[in-house]
Amino acid sequence: MADNKLQQQIEFIIEIDKLKSIFRRTKISNATRYENDAEHSWHFAMMALILKEHANDPDIDIHKVIKMGLIHDIVEIDAGDTFIYSGASEDDKYQKERAAADRIFGLLPAEQKEEMIALWLEFEAKETAEAKFAAALDRLGPVLLNYKTQGQSWRENNVPADRVLEVNSRIGEGSKTLWDHAKGLIEDAVVKGYIK
Amino acid sequence: MADNKLQQQIEFIIEIDKLKSIFRRTKISNATRYENDAEHSWHFAMMALILKEHANDPDIDIHKVIKMGLIHDIVEIDAGDTFIYSGASEDDKYQKERAAADRIFGLLPAEQKEEMIALWLEFEAKETAEAKFAAALDRLGPVLLNYKTQGQSWRENNVPADRVLEVNSRIGEGSKTLWDHAKGLIEDAVVKGYIK
Repeated sequence: MADNKLQQQIEFIIEIDKLKSIFRRTKISNATRYENDAEHSWHFAMMALILKEHANDPDIDIHKVIKMGLIHDIVEIDAGDTFIYSGASEDDKYQKERAAADRIFGLLPAEQKEEMIALWLEFEAKETAEAKFAAALDRLGPVLLNYKTQGQSWRENNVPADRVLEVNSRIGEGSKTLWDHAKGLIEDAVVKGYIK
Repeated sequence: MADNKLQQQIEFIIEIDKLKSIFRRTKISNATRYENDAEHSWHFAMMALILKEHANDPDIDIHKVIKMGLIHDIVEIDAGDTFIYSGASEDDKYQKERAAADRIFGLLPAEQKEEMIALWLEFEAKETAEAKFAAALDRLGPVLLNYKTQGQSWRENNVPADRVLEVNSRIGEGSKTLWDHAKGLIEDAVVKGYIK
């Protein structure tokens, strides 16, 4: 049984390698290519490690936020990336992602499957302090990359400034400090003509 | 001062985006392209999360191992990737990487700089239980990808089986269970003709 458990874990680890081939709408900072979900997840986890002091809740469990960062996009192996400004139906997205979570985390031994699905659902619900801060970092990353690439994904997808401000204002639910910073960058992007 | 601290942290976060452009010798599991350090670091941290029960030391601080996974290759932004079978001078590699650590982690506020350098040095020294398990995962990843890609980086770089076994046997210092598994894969790779 022990051997079988390791075999399941290894199969999961090889399966999630596919996250390296799920591409997003945002380019990496040197603007040479689109970012993939695996490297985005790494960057998210690094932001949690470095920016934890700026969470609205000072008693946040930052290890949980890091774990959310690592696993939050794994469902996109099956469900694909949904652009944050796409206006796609949340319900449709949830149904696809929920099925993906069952299949992919279902490769793991039962206890770990339950643990990973619970962590992903907590992230999705955005109700706990950890999930709110995690959601803030998930949005902050693309704002930083867009600012660095002169608004690449905002321009390519014709996203106007008021929509960028509206969608990203939810950063404030996890961190008022980081939202102040992101808002400043977005306003400066308008001044510089990176965004309409 | 608070604002200045956040500014330093954001600058660091943008700087480390460059890790997405540092390529390794191993290809991703579908063999379409080389893996980069950022996605490798994500995969490493995921392995820590999933495989922690197999560490030789059951009392290991797995959060520290995850953090080691996230930061262990950041120095390669300046120093470049050193192929594990290259036989490059360890001393020369260390000098370059140490200078890189000072520059890159030096972008952070002083306290975080010290924390990150200490964590990286602990990983490099491979003396603590956490560093030994982290080093095991850092090696296990390429073994899994090589097995999946029919020995791609071993073949491309003419690495013979005895050298693969010798270099990876250190996995056992962090996890005897994972070394047993990796050894089995390497031996099977020889049988299948993936490796000489």
